[in-house]
Amino acid sequence: MTVSLSPADSNLQAWPGLIEAYRPYLPVTPNTPVVTLLEGNTPLIPVEAIASIIGRSVRVFVKFDGLNPTGSFKDRGMTMAISKAKEAGAKAVICASTGNTSASAAAYARRGGMRVFVLIPDGYVALGKLAQALLYGAEVLAIKGNFDQALEIVREMAESYPITLVNSVNPYRLEGQKTGAFEVVDALGNAPDWLCIPVGNAGNITAYWMGFCQYHQAGKCDRLPRMMGFQAAGASPLVTGTPVAHPETLATAIRIGNPASWEKAVAAQQASQGAFNAVTDEEILDAYRLLASQEGIFCEPASAASVAGLLKVKDQVPTGATVVCVLTGNGLKDPDTAIKHCQNQFKTGVEPVLSAVASAMGF
Amino acid sequence: MTVSLSPADSNLQAWPGLIEAYRPYLPVTPNTPVVTLLEGNTPLIPVEAIASIIGRSVRVFVKFDGLNPTGSFKDRGMTMAISKAKEAGAKAVICASTGNTSASAAAYARRGGMRVFVLIPDGYVALGKLAQALLYGAEVLAIKGNFDQALEIVREMAESYPITLVNSVNPYRLEGQKTGAFEVVDALGNAPDWLCIPVGNAGNITAYWMGFCQYHQAGKCDRLPRMMGFQAAGASPLVTGTPVAHPETLATAIRIGNPASWEKAVAAQQASQGAFNAVTDEEILDAYRLLASQEGIFCEPASAASVAGLLKVKDQVPTGATVVCVLTGNGLKDPDTAIKHCQNQFKTGVEPVLSAVASAMGF
Repeated sequence: MTVSLSPADSNLQAWPGLIEAYRPYLPVTPNTPVVTLLEGNTPLIPVEAIASIIGRSVRVFVKFDGLNPTGSFKDRGMTMAISKAKEAGAKAVICASTGNTSASAAAYARRGGMRVFVLIPDGYVALGKLAQALLYGAEVLAIKGNFDQALEIVREMAESYPITLVNSVNPYRLEGQKTGAFEVVDALGNAPDWLCIPVGNAGNITAYWMGFCQYHQAGKCDRLPRMMGFQAAGASPLVTGTPVAHPETLATAIRIGNPASWEKAVAAQQASQGAFNAVTDEEILDAYRLLASQEGIFCEPASAASVAGLLKVKDQVPTGATVVCVLTGNGLKDPDTAIKHCQNQFKTGVEPVLSAVASAMGF
Repeated sequence: MTVSLSPADSNLQAWPGLIEAYRPYLPVTPNTPVVTLLEGNTPLIPVEAIASIIGRSVRVFVKFDGLNPTGSFKDRGMTMAISKAKEAGAKAVICASTGNTSASAAAYARRGGMRVFVLIPDGYVALGKLAQALLYGAEVLAIKGNFDQALEIVREMAESYPITLVNSVNPYRLEGQKTGAFEVVDALGNAPDWLCIPVGNAGNITAYWMGFCQYHQAGKCDRLPRMMGFQAAGASPLVTGTPVAHPETLATAIRIGNPASWEKAVAAQQASQGAFNAVTDEEILDAYRLLASQEGIFCEPASAASVAGLLKVKDQVPTGATVVCVLTGNGLKDPDTAIKHCQNQFKTGVEPVLSAVASAMGF
């Protein structure tokens, strides 16, 4: 796909999916069967209302990865993980996940002609959370056990059968996810000063740092950003330095007490002179509503942690800095939170005449 | 934004939103304040499982417009309608809609700094359907009346107050929507042989045809597609030639009995030697599940009407033809249908040991 995309500028071209776009930077060969939904290439949207809260000529953008094909950044990693699984001859993939990972795994695995199994604890999750993965064709097994047991069994299954594990331990996932950093640099022409990102399992902050470092080495940017990781206050092991036995937050996508990529994330934070901070659920919801009602951007609650965090530490942002906040998922993924927290400007029983409607509208 | 997007191909560039990308083809001036979420640039995804059902070397792609910023193709029209409203000095916009239009109007209007009003009939719709618009900051008024009365009042409001009507009668909406055709031609290098599209209010088929004709005149393609419009069997006035008083279909986005763009759609069909056909809800659901489980693409039920229709008339597709099916909305917009119709491959109560799990998986 090298045809011209825009009449106004004949250099714009159709996006071929992230593996083709960034092939020289990824562990693929000409023999790798690329399984793609043309993921990546998500918009980097300027958010002026948020920038104006900070002032001091700070520029703020959001990387809206909720516009990936299954609605989250997980697609970046999954196109890699599933393509490599197919290359290795896997007939099926497996993961333990109730959220964005299972949906993404299911979409790519089925597209690649493989079966996909999702293991979860019995009674753990409502059907609504799994409907997307089920519709893609996932085969879901609920075990009489907890999430740790599910994780252990999927590892064993992958060792004993021709099944590829696509949980976060799969190394190709981070390889794909690092392309988010490439796209940020390509769009800005350089790395930002700050990269604000929600942190749960800590894979994405690790992957972004990998991407920035690789691009820096390749001469694509002449600086590296400070990696600013934000966790939910009730699930903030990287802030406190201690695993959390019972993590709690409404931002379910980052409700993780013992991150898989703990050490790598700390290394990224230290090398970049960044920081980890916690934001409360109330701050997350405020940012979630602010993004929707002022910027027109509807993201998952967990995604809003990056913006909530930026606003929390706004006095630390250097004057004139460029800041990118990663929005990891689409708000449509979590209709319950939207219904519960939409500011309910809903008047009923209005008389069906012009004057009554105008009056109700304040005209 | 003219920086290089891809290291592998320095001609790839960051997408500037559809107004900037197609400025010479749109009724904007340098004075138009562009309100954009970087909409458009949605992927044209090859769907080989569907093509293989047709056989005979037919190529099939889906234009997945559900990956627009608010989750539907409405964003293409709304960036134009809201930018022009702002240019005209409007302080507010108004529409009568319970679905994708209200969400898109709310996002763009709020981003543009305007108030946004949505009129609906009392008791007509569940909060879930409106949550996205409300979260974006829509002010919703439910009148003691029916949908026709709501439509009449929003027209009167727009005539009497500095409020712009952004319902489908707003002419800028079709101007924005026609860019879908531009993107298809740009990605393929020419127009397809067939363009399959769901038809409800008939604005989108009208807009696509406008786009293909304009691009053809500009020498961007050397042919025009047959416009194949598909309606739900319970709401198929363009197939029967008669308005439907009580349209019924689970594909709510095309549940319309008397399309606003009736004449224009018929003109497009006739000029293109296309056709209108009806598909049953069962056929729509089959295509919806097929897209998800074989292609990894999760669209709204109404969107699947284009694929259902293609499969219904597949024997009429010329051998070797290139077909594009438009998928107008994101499946995440309609979680209830997903929950109800996901093939429930969900086993519970599995013993948490390797052998039991392997056995449950068929290994």
